Amino acid sequence: MAEKPYILVTNDDGLNSKGLKELIDVMLLFGEVVVIAPENPQSGKSAAITVEFPLRGIKLKSEDGLEIYKCNGTPVDCVKLGFNQLLGRKPDYVVSGINHGANSSISVIYSGTVGAAMEGCLHGVPSVAFSLSDYNPDADFAKAKIYCAKVFQTIIENGLPPFICLNVNIPKGKPKGIKVTRQTKGKWMEEFEKRTDPHGHEYFWLSGYFHNFEENSEDTDIWALDENYVSVVPVNLDMTCYNTLELLKTWNF
Amino acid sequence: MAEKPYILVTNDDGLNSKGLKELIDVMLLFGEVVVIAPENPQSGKSAAITVEFPLRGIKLKSEDGLEIYKCNGTPVDCVKLGFNQLLGRKPDYVVSGINHGANSSISVIYSGTVGAAMEGCLHGVPSVAFSLSDYNPDADFAKAKIYCAKVFQTIIENGLPPFICLNVNIPKGKPKGIKVTRQTKGKWMEEFEKRTDPHGHEYFWLSGYFHNFEENSEDTDIWALDENYVSVVPVNLDMTCYNTLELLKTWNF
Repeated sequence: MAEKPYILVTNDDGLNSKGLKELIDVMLLFGEVVVIAPENPQSGKSAAITVEFPLRGIKLKSEDGLEIYKCNGTPVDCVKLGFNQLLGRKPDYVVSGINHGANSSISVIYSGTVGAAMEGCLHGVPSVAFSLSDYNPDADFAKAKIYCAKVFQTIIENGLPPFICLNVNIPKGKPKGIKVTRQTKGKWMEEFEKRTDPHGHEYFWLSGYFHNFEENSEDTDIWALDENYVSVVPVNLDMTCYNTLELLKTWNF
Repeated sequence: MAEKPYILVTNDDGLNSKGLKELIDVMLLFGEVVVIAPENPQSGKSAAITVEFPLRGIKLKSEDGLEIYKCNGTPVDCVKLGFNQLLGRKPDYVVSGINHGANSSISVIYSGTVGAAMEGCLHGVPSVAFSLSDYNPDADFAKAKIYCAKVFQTIIENGLPPFICLNVNIPKGKPKGIKVTRQTKGKWMEEFEKRTDPHGHEYFWLSGYFHNFEENSEDTDIWALDENYVSVVPVNLDMTCYNTLELLKTWNF
């Protein structure tokens, strides 16, 4: 890469979130930045794509080294629109975040932040999702930004294997360092708060708490976060379970 | 399981799709059926969850052995609402589909049909996504139903390992049999059709064609479908890439 890296930044909290601005700050240290971010919050949108209505990508800003677009779709839509339509040249990297709130363990399957990184990876470039374990809209990203830069620098030096993106989660306090970890086995429990509307009909707000199936496993992402380490999980876009594949072959379908 | 199995059926094409009715037909052969399906089409919704508005689950029908609810959320929301709020007892199985159109290869990450099966699996019960390689709303499901029943019978006999669900794709014609396969490496290309609205502004419809990175690999889901076999892929909810994890540990973050 002779030129400065061309870095596509997106997120799922939307264009106006603090975490996005902080990630733009970091990426401007490394190269030319193009932001294509959802105009509305897209938390929990996973790798969803938009098929029921058309998409728009509106340029809001274009100055030396920084372009910003808003998009009316999901995080994955933002990445697809960037690679396929909006940009004059192919981005060299996709970074997503910094999400307000962790995307550890099974949250990887629900996360729009991770969905965007998966999509970048499918477009053949090293891609990373960054999340801070703090839901506060005014969270302090100062220490998180240092670790985003460290991880990104390492990716510039090493690249990433095909069909693999990184899911990076950063603890709220002062990180002790970086741990390469695996996705914790866990799930969300008692997931709704039931209410009654003024007309006497029930409705439900998604809520609940996380249950960790392997609390003492020191190689997991949740353990790392709990111990104030930055967690880096390599996420595989080939979701085939090869062990189970061999098992299924022994069954008489 | 002494009683008849209690089977939760959902989909992403929505409550009024033919594929859903066909899957209900099949499942009534095996046990008591509860349907919780999206009131609107949810194709491409992946494992998205709804956080921005509250959910409702409205009972539409309750007769001997069959209950039907509509839900204003995603396929994953339907499954969560079923396990957590709407049902008096825990379903023994979750089946999703029959989708109008294949969910092979990388479509696994975008598919609401597969998202629902993943969610069922997280609730600790064997879960399967069924898709027919035919987008026609009036597709002929007669042969597909026989294979849905075969696969489901095999799952009743064997169960499934934890954190694994099945992604079953059925060819359009007369299937030659069932193949256990892996997710084909591929991606969607040239993904948008650009149009101009009456006010002169551009908009984009998601579109495009599939590109197979490994056309001649006889162990893949696309190969099986092209050869008129039903494809069964075991999908792993642990997305960690363990090979890459070892590689990353050698890097100096």
